[in-house]
Amino acid sequence: MNTTPRSVLAVGAHPDDIEMGCGGTLARHAASGDRVTMLVITYGQAGPGDVRARMREQQDASATLGADLVWGHLPDGKVSNHELDLVHLIESTIREVRADVVYTHGVEDTHQDHRAVALATLGAARHCRQVLTYESPSSYGFRPHVFVDVSSALDKKADALRCHRSQVADSRMVDLDVLHHQAGYRGFQSRVGTAEAFVPHRLVLEV
Amino acid sequence: MNTTPRSVLAVGAHPDDIEMGCGGTLARHAASGDRVTMLVITYGQAGPGDVRARMREQQDASATLGADLVWGHLPDGKVSNHELDLVHLIESTIREVRADVVYTHGVEDTHQDHRAVALATLGAARHCRQVLTYESPSSYGFRPHVFVDVSSALDKKADALRCHRSQVADSRMVDLDVLHHQAGYRGFQSRVGTAEAFVPHRLVLEV
Amino acid sequence: MNTTPRSVLAVGAHPDDIEMGCGGTLARHAASGDRVTMLVITYGQAGPGDVRARMREQQDASATLGADLVWGHLPDGKVSNHELDLVHLIESTIREVRADVVYTHGVEDTHQDHRAVALATLGAARHCRQVLTYESPSSYGFRPHVFVDVSSALDKKADALRCHRSQVADSRMVDLDVLHHQAGYRGFQSRVGTAEAFVPHRLVLEV
Amino acid sequence: MNTTPRSVLAVGAHPDDIEMGCGGTLARHAASGDRVTMLVITYGQAGPGDVRARMREQQDASATLGADLVWGHLPDGKVSNHELDLVHLIESTIREVRADVVYTHGVEDTHQDHRAVALATLGAARHCRQVLTYESPSSYGFRPHVFVDVSSALDKKADALRCHRSQVADSRMVDLDVLHHQAGYRGFQSRVGTAEAFVPHRLVLEV
Amino acid sequence: MNTTPRSVLAVGAHPDDIEMGCGGTLARHAASGDRVTMLVITYGQAGPGDVRARMREQQDASATLGADLVWGHLPDGKVSNHELDLVHLIESTIREVRADVVYTHGVEDTHQDHRAVALATLGAARHCRQVLTYESPSSYGFRPHVFVDVSSALDKKADALRCHRSQVADSRMVDLDVLHHQAGYRGFQSRVGTAEAFVPHRLVLEV
Amino acid sequence: MNTTPRSVLAVGAHPDDIEMGCGGTLARHAASGDRVTMLVITYGQAGPGDVRARMREQQDASATLGADLVWGHLPDGKVSNHELDLVHLIESTIREVRADVVYTHGVEDTHQDHRAVALATLGAARHCRQVLTYESPSSYGFRPHVFVDVSSALDKKADALRCHRSQVADSRMVDLDVLHHQAGYRGFQSRVGTAEAFVPHRLVLEV
Repeated sequence: MNTTPRSVLAVGAHPDDIEMGCGGTLARHAASGDRVTMLVITYGQAGPGDVRARMREQQDASATLGADLVWGHLPDGKVSNHELDLVHLIESTIREVRADVVYTHGVEDTHQDHRAVALATLGAARHCRQVLTYESPSSYGFRPHVFVDVSSALDKKADALRCHRSQVADSRMVDLDVLHHQAGYRGFQSRVGTAEAFVPHRLVLEV
Repeated sequence: MNTTPRSVLAVGAHPDDIEMGCGGTLARHAASGDRVTMLVITYGQAGPGDVRARMREQQDASATLGADLVWGHLPDGKVSNHELDLVHLIESTIREVRADVVYTHGVEDTHQDHRAVALATLGAARHCRQVLTYESPSSYGFRPHVFVDVSSALDKKADALRCHRSQVADSRMVDLDVLHHQAGYRGFQSRVGTAEAFVPHRLVLEV
Repeated sequence: MNTTPRSVLAVGAHPDDIEMGCGGTLARHAASGDRVTMLVITYGQAGPGDVRARMREQQDASATLGADLVWGHLPDGKVSNHELDLVHLIESTIREVRADVVYTHGVEDTHQDHRAVALATLGAARHCRQVLTYESPSSYGFRPHVFVDVSSALDKKADALRCHRSQVADSRMVDLDVLHHQAGYRGFQSRVGTAEAFVPHRLVLEV
Repeated sequence: MNTTPRSVLAVGAHPDDIEMGCGGTLARHAASGDRVTMLVITYGQAGPGDVRARMREQQDASATLGADLVWGHLPDGKVSNHELDLVHLIESTIREVRADVVYTHGVEDTHQDHRAVALATLGAARHCRQVLTYESPSSYGFRPHVFVDVSSALDKKADALRCHRSQVADSRMVDLDVLHHQAGYRGFQSRVGTAEAFVPHRLVLEV
Repeated sequence: MNTTPRSVLAVGAHPDDIEMGCGGTLARHAASGDRVTMLVITYGQAGPGDVRARMREQQDASATLGADLVWGHLPDGKVSNHELDLVHLIESTIREVRADVVYTHGVEDTHQDHRAVALATLGAARHCRQVLTYESPSSYGFRPHVFVDVSSALDKKADALRCHRSQVADSRMVDLDVLHHQAGYRGFQSRVGTAEAFVPHRLVLEV
Repeated sequence: MNTTPRSVLAVGAHPDDIEMGCGGTLARHAASGDRVTMLVITYGQAGPGDVRARMREQQDASATLGADLVWGHLPDGKVSNHELDLVHLIESTIREVRADVVYTHGVEDTHQDHRAVALATLGAARHCRQVLTYESPSSYGFRPHVFVDVSSALDKKADALRCHRSQVADSRMVDLDVLHHQAGYRGFQSRVGTAEAFVPHRLVLEV
């Protein structure tokens, strides 16, 4: 357990984005005694699954990781139309949970909502000392040099992803296979078993 | 089968470097009727395994992929001391096999021999229209946007790597696991089953 | 002729953008038996020339290259206001023509419509295995490593550009001179006669 | 004090390089109970000050920071002539001190010895999980996203630099002014008082 | 005095942005006889200080630097909602003052208004031969290679910043300290006393 | 004429490298009254033409541009074997001609001598305030944002290149065609007639 628990905030555009990007890392934060909050900006209402189902699934997934859940209530696919509101929403969440560490999407991503959330988080977290961006299936040119060993948390990450039942109906196994390969590849790059990878925006290291 | 077979040259610093980086791609070239040549610059004499063993292993691996083998005879670990000779050696091999396509190490690599071979190949191949750089365990910052689907050739790649018996004694399974994860991750990025990844130096596309 | 013809989709913000960026490449695709579709997002209604004239000119230019023409009907200069619609529009066109190959603007471009079209296309083409970005007069920091030899298609490209009569009234010769210099410079870089240059977003190579 | 002290190795080409780049960070490591080793590759014999003076000065500076000192004995200005020896030297030092954390020059540096030491360290540290590159007066294009707060250690850093009496004869004040500005600027970027800046090569974060 | 005075236009999102980024450079332009215009896009109405106060402060600051002031009248925080208007506004200002030299925000900035102004200026200035981007407290990854020596103008820059009384109430000294460190650090990088730093977008040098 | 003439030093690996990269810019410097020196590191003895011929040709070319000529006497193809000597040679030439402006190869170049000269010049010119890198036929990834209008000097550049009679025997027209296309393309990018392009290493602008 960390002697001085920290407050960790992860921001993602849709249900399951955060789990994919840094679910194992969040599980490790929770296991260390850190307080973890997930801020999910939309309900993913444009995809398969109705809003109530997506909300329940995300609630289950967050509970699996040991995280609190906050919703952003913005419209799926159109997040960039609400740029200033989004910045304010993330700012106020950072303030409320007194976030020490912030995770968000990487800025090079082909999904418009991911880009909007990434950039808004960097702006909202301008006073935070630890801001890291995570990988997504729609990332491009992601060139990580920072990693977290998730060997002890990979099962929990898979469990959290399985909570998103409406998303993984047919394609479940494929997704978890990709998860497995990605974790193994990033683990190889970082010389640990399995890992999640990050591009740091601003990272003040404790030594 | 390709109606107009091409001559393909892959250049690597040590035995097994080429197989790791683009073994599946070479196997596919061979299967398409292209002529494939592997130019291995050193015998890997600084590592485990004596020179005669390494030579036999490499010969077996090249045969497995359907490739001819040419040795560069330079000293392992000290390739950069022979920069001009290296450029001339690769130039003359390109000329001799009339290479249409050239594969080599990426330039961002922490191994000094890999860097030296990468840079020398780029210089030697200055008139070639298709020069691609491949990934290695010591690559860093590798940001590929070009891929080859190796789903049908992954077994052959694994077979070729297993030929390097002196290198994989204890760590064999680990290596092949990494191979598997990397191929799966690159396949996911490129929307195919399994893939090898490349950063193009110069690539004239046929359309 | 290609034994297995492909479906090629080129996306551009305004009339003549696609011709400038990859007109020679499209002409070569058409000559090889590929089916070519040009999706032009706006009528360029903010510039000189009325909408009906621009439509006729674009129709002529597309016919010159051997391509079908589809219009996006979005307002010139304000494409980014319709981000989600734009993604859906490009997705449905990709689906409709079953695009195997997609060309679009590069993401580093000083024109707001070009950036919006580039990013939306990358998102819409997230399942495509060949997505290439082309150069524009407003590109910046364009660093191509992929090229297509357009020596046999440069006249056709010039013819297609000349169809845009409302745009080239006075400046015609200047524009075609620039076209000529650019093609010669890119040809020199790629070791062919004249070329068009691309930055690949995702390119699965056939070997 | 850290409950599990780590072994920290900093590698620099010449006397005073390490202090300039990460002297404050090393002082903080020492204060936390970590074991700190400085590996200085040359005596700086090509500059002002004789070898014996440089050795005494470096010994004093290392003691000021609470670090052990190891010499690499290579010729100043010509480090790249001994590339393989350099890799072996750093490998054996890493093994000997069982380094958990490694600091070295950034790879983009206009001094030939700095580049050679940077690249050799990245190769030698290929199994280490925390490898960070530091800034130098001859760095270019240094784009840091990782920082260490050195507010409590800046005096010690200045003291260590002052030990290099043969180097700062006339220009002392200038140097310490630059030190002060750099620390203030990097502190501003990282939202702390004063900081040292790093580009991570590979950084496995504890969470 | 310059024998052929130029027209210089600096564009910034909010009051005090331009002064922070290139106030010293503008003062030097004015001292050389160039005509300097500052185009401030919003009143900064979302921050502390009412609009009338911000306008007076900006007027004072511009006068201090010897510059004319033009307002853009767009809403603070929501500049990107007016992308096309913004481009037109900057285009018409460029035309009106016949700008030879244009300064604007860098494109990598965590503040949404800064990004919008940066990109719109690059588009609007597409025919200008000297377009340089400046640094801001919210810049990230700023990697300058172009500098202006502001040793003789730093006092004037500080004076201009002090005009923004509503912004620097409590934090004044901190801000000016940062200013001082930044100028010293950039001066060190560029081998002059104190400097402002720029990333050139397009810079035609007179030789 | 410049009221305060400057001393300009251009460094190149082989005869004709400097002319190709920045011959027009040097001619303009000379026309403005600046003193221009060309430091050519090798005689190009590995290529066609004997040493005496190459020397005479380079002498003629330098005279054509209005430049003094200094030879570096290092062996063609093996410049990197003399790294420290090369740095000292360039340092002493900078000191001797009191260079205000330095031009050299870009660092991303597939020719080993070009890379060695580029890096050594950046080190040697560490105190200079204007250091610019030029383009070469073997450059890769060259991404210029700084340009010099050479419309008035292109004929002189072509004349200087024609002096290298041993190099352009058969291929003359090709080379001058490429020169023409490159100048036209770079001119288009920089919004002037014809231009030479540069990546600045360090550039202190006069305003």
